[in-house]
Amino acid sequence: MIRAVYPGSFDPVTHGHMDIVHRSAAIFDDLILAISNNPSKKALFSIEERLEIANHLTKDIPNVRVDSFDSLLMQYVVSKDVKVVVRGLRAVTDFEMEFQMALINKHIKHDVETIFLVTNTDYSFISSSIIKEVASFGGDVSHLVSPIVNESLKKKFGR
Amino acid sequence: MIRAVYPGSFDPVTHGHMDIVHRSAAIFDDLILAISNNPSKKALFSIEERLEIANHLTKDIPNVRVDSFDSLLMQYVVSKDVKVVVRGLRAVTDFEMEFQMALINKHIKHDVETIFLVTNTDYSFISSSIIKEVASFGGDVSHLVSPIVNESLKKKFGR
Amino acid sequence: MIRAVYPGSFDPVTHGHMDIVHRSAAIFDDLILAISNNPSKKALFSIEERLEIANHLTKDIPNVRVDSFDSLLMQYVVSKDVKVVVRGLRAVTDFEMEFQMALINKHIKHDVETIFLVTNTDYSFISSSIIKEVASFGGDVSHLVSPIVNESLKKKFGR
Amino acid sequence: MIRAVYPGSFDPVTHGHMDIVHRSAAIFDDLILAISNNPSKKALFSIEERLEIANHLTKDIPNVRVDSFDSLLMQYVVSKDVKVVVRGLRAVTDFEMEFQMALINKHIKHDVETIFLVTNTDYSFISSSIIKEVASFGGDVSHLVSPIVNESLKKKFGR
Amino acid sequence: MIRAVYPGSFDPVTHGHMDIVHRSAAIFDDLILAISNNPSKKALFSIEERLEIANHLTKDIPNVRVDSFDSLLMQYVVSKDVKVVVRGLRAVTDFEMEFQMALINKHIKHDVETIFLVTNTDYSFISSSIIKEVASFGGDVSHLVSPIVNESLKKKFGR
Amino acid sequence: MIRAVYPGSFDPVTHGHMDIVHRSAAIFDDLILAISNNPSKKALFSIEERLEIANHLTKDIPNVRVDSFDSLLMQYVVSKDVKVVVRGLRAVTDFEMEFQMALINKHIKHDVETIFLVTNTDYSFISSSIIKEVASFGGDVSHLVSPIVNESLKKKFGR
Repeated sequence: MIRAVYPGSFDPVTHGHMDIVHRSAAIFDDLILAISNNPSKKALFSIEERLEIANHLTKDIPNVRVDSFDSLLMQYVVSKDVKVVVRGLRAVTDFEMEFQMALINKHIKHDVETIFLVTNTDYSFISSSIIKEVASFGGDVSHLVSPIVNESLKKKFGR
Repeated sequence: MIRAVYPGSFDPVTHGHMDIVHRSAAIFDDLILAISNNPSKKALFSIEERLEIANHLTKDIPNVRVDSFDSLLMQYVVSKDVKVVVRGLRAVTDFEMEFQMALINKHIKHDVETIFLVTNTDYSFISSSIIKEVASFGGDVSHLVSPIVNESLKKKFGR
Repeated sequence: MIRAVYPGSFDPVTHGHMDIVHRSAAIFDDLILAISNNPSKKALFSIEERLEIANHLTKDIPNVRVDSFDSLLMQYVVSKDVKVVVRGLRAVTDFEMEFQMALINKHIKHDVETIFLVTNTDYSFISSSIIKEVASFGGDVSHLVSPIVNESLKKKFGR
Repeated sequence: MIRAVYPGSFDPVTHGHMDIVHRSAAIFDDLILAISNNPSKKALFSIEERLEIANHLTKDIPNVRVDSFDSLLMQYVVSKDVKVVVRGLRAVTDFEMEFQMALINKHIKHDVETIFLVTNTDYSFISSSIIKEVASFGGDVSHLVSPIVNESLKKKFGR
Repeated sequence: MIRAVYPGSFDPVTHGHMDIVHRSAAIFDDLILAISNNPSKKALFSIEERLEIANHLTKDIPNVRVDSFDSLLMQYVVSKDVKVVVRGLRAVTDFEMEFQMALINKHIKHDVETIFLVTNTDYSFISSSIIKEVASFGGDVSHLVSPIVNESLKKKFGR
Repeated sequence: MIRAVYPGSFDPVTHGHMDIVHRSAAIFDDLILAISNNPSKKALFSIEERLEIANHLTKDIPNVRVDSFDSLLMQYVVSKDVKVVVRGLRAVTDFEMEFQMALINKHIKHDVETIFLVTNTDYSFISSSIIKEVASFGGDVSHLVSPIVNESLKKKFGR
């Protein structure tokens, strides 16, 4: 049985993230969507809000569960007996940063693999940051995130 | 009649920016140099100073005018009936960020095009940030910016 | 009046090419789709076939016409009084080669601009080469090219 | 049960390839090392030689078997009921080509995933091509390939 | 006699940095490891601590000495009669930023050369930042930095 | 005494190459411009012609001499007691290929360093290939190569 983890800030979850979740859940027996709770990075949504959104969006995928972690990813991975870390790669992303993280994680924990999936081109241009920026100006992001996220963004930005 | 906008922070305008202005003004009927007034990004020059500098530098180009905006670029674009967004691409720049912005802007407003011009190699290594850093140490940037900008930088850094 | 040229091998025209044609024709007064007839590059379709296909696909766009050239692009550009060269940029393309061509063309002919449009993400992964490769094995490319191109590919590969 | 395929020319197999084989075999239930037999690409080793080498090097990994294919990868994948395509990514590789292939393959066969593993940094600079070039001049590649490959290269280049 | 400078934040020195020091010291007659003391960048180690660590690690390399500077690099370079600036390039690094700095430095001081060495692949994935992040969570970085740095990190993070 | 080699095809030498020659000759005691005579790569100029051109262009730089080699670069380097290999990096070049060559060369001969200089932006867009292509159509390349090269190109292309 192969357990995989899909780590990230998920602040908030986008359609691009959900695409990776569905595709990874089809490959691995067990998938943890693990939300990084890093106090030094200011998030728009609290860890509780992010957990609630992620739980809601994955509730119909039987082999996916949601969790949070506040340690080094590789420390979390060891504690959960995870064998594979999943990351989405966008053509328009910080590929080199991902590469570096994969190599340092391999160094820290040699028998855990980071695998990359290429993000669906429909979502290759979206990121949580850009969605927050557009939403903060009242721009329409309803085609890029789930209704629950869209509503949450509207509340946050008072619209 | 095609109206184009050349958006940016222009904090301050460099020779590289002016190169793009001149070349775009030769292609399009009407060009707006639009200064982004984003309160969350700390600028060296106030929006008034930046408008003054840009107005001074473009006053002899008949089809160029200067404006500022504090909304999402695509919201501004709609309000001004703009058809084309112009961006300069440097070999040594964040190409992927530009790509991502072009795609999200296309998503928000389908009938507005972002076009890229390749920055003249004489200016490919300069950016407003690097010019501010060099000037802050008293380094000479007089070959990279207009005299008015050079003088303004000296005043800002008390030299 | 601004006349633009969209040069390429177009061996054969893809949906990605046609996307650039439509978007460029909306910006410029006059657009020439110029097919490079370079005898040193072996093409699948003859120059006559490529002209016929391109003419067929652009016949309903009033300000577009099709031509071929066998000189240096900048020599062709001068002969046609062209002011702008249009190129599509894919995130998954040889960006650096495009950059180099734009700079050398600027060197050869200073008052002609190369502008880049970002290819629609739906087509960012297709190129004439990859379509020919897939079609040569009998793979289905009908969603990536026009019916006339699809039929022509089938004939070429005897299917 | 997840069956994966690791496709390539393997002309010849390097330590970098074997690293990907071992790591993929630890993730997936069943792994096919599939050698592309493309007559239009001139190979140093015949398909028979490449199959023999690959069989020799994988004979002790129970869930790996070796095969060849001369169709489109996605046609082969369908015929073998494969769910995942594995590719190694080197920081010093044609990342964009890999990206493009992953996207076109996704287009052709939507329910098959391409996943990328980052090549071990010890092998990130080697490729079959560079090994053949070094060996052709009598350079020592014994630390970069298995003994069987090293001997085969010596024979090919008459040393 | 050629004097070179290897500038950086060295917050803290890693095995990757020391690899560049040793290799540069073998090429040039005289090498200065110059620690940038930029008050606007928050460092984990004080300039005194960084000088002490660097002095300790280079004390057995006769033609290397350690210094700090708080001006523009090119101003420091002039004051020390330096002819060459050395930088390490990692495949997983901000290559474009390095390129831009080399070009602006060439512009400021035409007769000083920036040369790049490719970082040893064993260290290509490490940076001072990532080491600090891993160490802050109590992760083991003892294979990536010298014992003196490892101890200093433990003290800083109270472990 | 540090002897460096600047290897390449030099088919033909460009202003970009000569820029690297002058800058390297100012750093190292002794510089060999080494022309690769690889029979499997079809060159426009014979090895004799390339040697003659390079000798002519470097005759006034006392510490530079010209040579050719038909072995692996690292074999040549050993035979000449060379310590440093110099390569020019263009923003618009095959950076990854250069990286790979530097790493494989380091693997073959551990105590020889490859160093990179950033090509002057005036020449960052030129390469021998593009110059040959432009010249083959009768385009003017007189600003990008020396008069002797310009004349030789004209003769080759019968103009």
